[in-house]
Amino acid sequence: MSDPAERAAALDEKDELRPVREKFVLDDTVYLDGNSLGALPGHVPARVADVITREWGELRIRSWEESGWWTAPERVGDRIAPLLGAAPGQVVAGDSTSVNVFKAVVGAVRMAGAGRDEILADEASFPTDGYIAESAARMTGCTLRALPAARIPVEAGPRTALALVNHVDYRTGRLNDLPAVTAALHDAGALAVWDLCHSAGALPVRLDAHGVDLAVGCTYKYLNGGPGAPAYLYVREELQARFDSPLPGWNSHAVPFGMDPAYAPADGIIRGRVGTPDILSMLALEAALDVWDGVSVEAVRAKSLALGDFFLECVDAYVPEGRVRCVTPREHPQRGSQIALACADAGTVMTELIRRGVVGDFRHPDVLRFGFTPLYTSFADVARAARVLGEVVG
Amino acid sequence: MSDPAERAAALDEKDELRPVREKFVLDDTVYLDGNSLGALPGHVPARVADVITREWGELRIRSWEESGWWTAPERVGDRIAPLLGAAPGQVVAGDSTSVNVFKAVVGAVRMAGAGRDEILADEASFPTDGYIAESAARMTGCTLRALPAARIPVEAGPRTALALVNHVDYRTGRLNDLPAVTAALHDAGALAVWDLCHSAGALPVRLDAHGVDLAVGCTYKYLNGGPGAPAYLYVREELQARFDSPLPGWNSHAVPFGMDPAYAPADGIIRGRVGTPDILSMLALEAALDVWDGVSVEAVRAKSLALGDFFLECVDAYVPEGRVRCVTPREHPQRGSQIALACADAGTVMTELIRRGVVGDFRHPDVLRFGFTPLYTSFADVARAARVLGEVVG
Repeated sequence: MSDPAERAAALDEKDELRPVREKFVLDDTVYLDGNSLGALPGHVPARVADVITREWGELRIRSWEESGWWTAPERVGDRIAPLLGAAPGQVVAGDSTSVNVFKAVVGAVRMAGAGRDEILADEASFPTDGYIAESAARMTGCTLRALPAARIPVEAGPRTALALVNHVDYRTGRLNDLPAVTAALHDAGALAVWDLCHSAGALPVRLDAHGVDLAVGCTYKYLNGGPGAPAYLYVREELQARFDSPLPGWNSHAVPFGMDPAYAPADGIIRGRVGTPDILSMLALEAALDVWDGVSVEAVRAKSLALGDFFLECVDAYVPEGRVRCVTPREHPQRGSQIALACADAGTVMTELIRRGVVGDFRHPDVLRFGFTPLYTSFADVARAARVLGEVVG
Repeated sequence: MSDPAERAAALDEKDELRPVREKFVLDDTVYLDGNSLGALPGHVPARVADVITREWGELRIRSWEESGWWTAPERVGDRIAPLLGAAPGQVVAGDSTSVNVFKAVVGAVRMAGAGRDEILADEASFPTDGYIAESAARMTGCTLRALPAARIPVEAGPRTALALVNHVDYRTGRLNDLPAVTAALHDAGALAVWDLCHSAGALPVRLDAHGVDLAVGCTYKYLNGGPGAPAYLYVREELQARFDSPLPGWNSHAVPFGMDPAYAPADGIIRGRVGTPDILSMLALEAALDVWDGVSVEAVRAKSLALGDFFLECVDAYVPEGRVRCVTPREHPQRGSQIALACADAGTVMTELIRRGVVGDFRHPDVLRFGFTPLYTSFADVARAARVLGEVVG
């Protein structure tokens, strides 16, 4: 192709998301690890400082009401909802992804019809999903069967309570077919539980449109909420009255300050809450979500795919043939927002890339992972990453 | 008694913890709600600012290793441990108290001998403990029996797997007899699981000395960790190899980055972890714990009792006879670090107290709760609180 650096400059010039990049704290590093920890939005430190010094330090206990702390989990959930294609009142923020997987899987088993005692799980999932699904199966008298995501529509049957599926595979970056898998599960009378960790904020999810039943995801990747920021749980509105949480903490009670020794769940998505929400992290996340104001997920998706295509072109131009092998599908409908390259000595190669200012990550055993966050990744970043990769493996 | 204000000045004069008060952000308010949300230690904002701007903003993903993020849960646990009378390696921070109650109760059921299918729970517990214990019972095939803490030693029998008991009652401030109840449970072959939310940081707990099996607690009360700061889980060292968590997230795996689809628990207290730790809140808590440097829990306990005694004397002096009734035991061995006064119209009275600069809290249906945090509560605070209370109800 023509000179990648020139091409990159032209692509950046016409990038409509370019002004959003200014909202982030970046440096000379090419940061392609936003699919692990998103970069810091520049306005977040001041917001957190205010939460700490004024809301905690001065108002103290009054902030639970006066600063809106108490209602933050559902308020932040409603801020995340549009990125998931979800109407308000169906997403609640809090706890870790693992804890939310537990709520979602147990909740789905309890909603499933009689005789449905089998949980299917995408075998390529990030391991915590499988570990937690196994625990949920053990504690609900179900059996867990792990299989490739593509087999789930075929294998779901009359005993299937639910399938837990990754929207985007954390290792390969493959995008699973959410509409088709959800529809097939519904045809089998089973529920669809999706893990959106690697898709939300990178591509349109459309939970409501596709009738997804439950979903979970983290907020520290493409949502830039900060290290270990609270995860979220989605429960489709029609199912909320039947959502029977295995973690019925006092924050999910209908009258939390009634101090009733008998549990009675709140209406709506609030029943997905558990204990006291982690306010510093929750409000850092809330602030971080401001960068989405005026940004459409469709524009993000278009740029994400363009970044991936351009990266692959640059890899072809810079990296000696045969030295790396792309394990991410090249077809747009099957691709998330990362490119994964299999490579001998991938661990050593990534260490050297990082030393030279190109930050991706290594996933056992042989994968170099490059994540594109369209809000701040530029085409120049991508060209430089491929060039340095070529130098390192050349 | 002699003039309470003069007495208060003399008591403050000889208070050895007086210099610690300078480490907190306080104002003209008398803040007696540290048993709900501890005051802000003055150095915390700068530490959190550094975590956000440098560790997250500049180092980004590298901070998981270089800034010690990954090991924070067990490092912070070891900072909390001395306040619980626990040797290192037995406490891990993370998740909410409710989630930790679930881990502890299910974990204890799984450690209990065959045929032990009954869970006893302190009926006066903060409600979330009962809700979660009920869920744990349901999911492990046990029955839950709620009863007064004092009955637990008598009622524990050959079917008892464990009892979940509050160290200090959140409403009345009664201190339960941890050594005796623990010993009685052990005599019955059952495990003792303690909730330390209202005792840790206010009085000596001595988990190791009394052979407590598991314990949980929050860190936003007497440990001043900030709103919704991570809770903690204690598992006695000898039991850790048998601790089988119902929430086996990837952070509790023996080789978390091995990405093994099969779960294998880590050794030690690390197996009490679940998902990715909430770093901003976790490191705010870690910083907040610095105020304990050089402070002994014994000195805190002595001052706590002196504050309570003095408050009761001042209430006798200022509040018209019969207008309030102390529901906290006056005897030191049965008292935590709060005084609870039953009072007609308690809700209205507390609202007026707060309006006049005395912040306690109201607990349904008729309790005024005044918490004493010996690190920053002064005798002058206590005298003023009683005086204003007398004015409000007089």
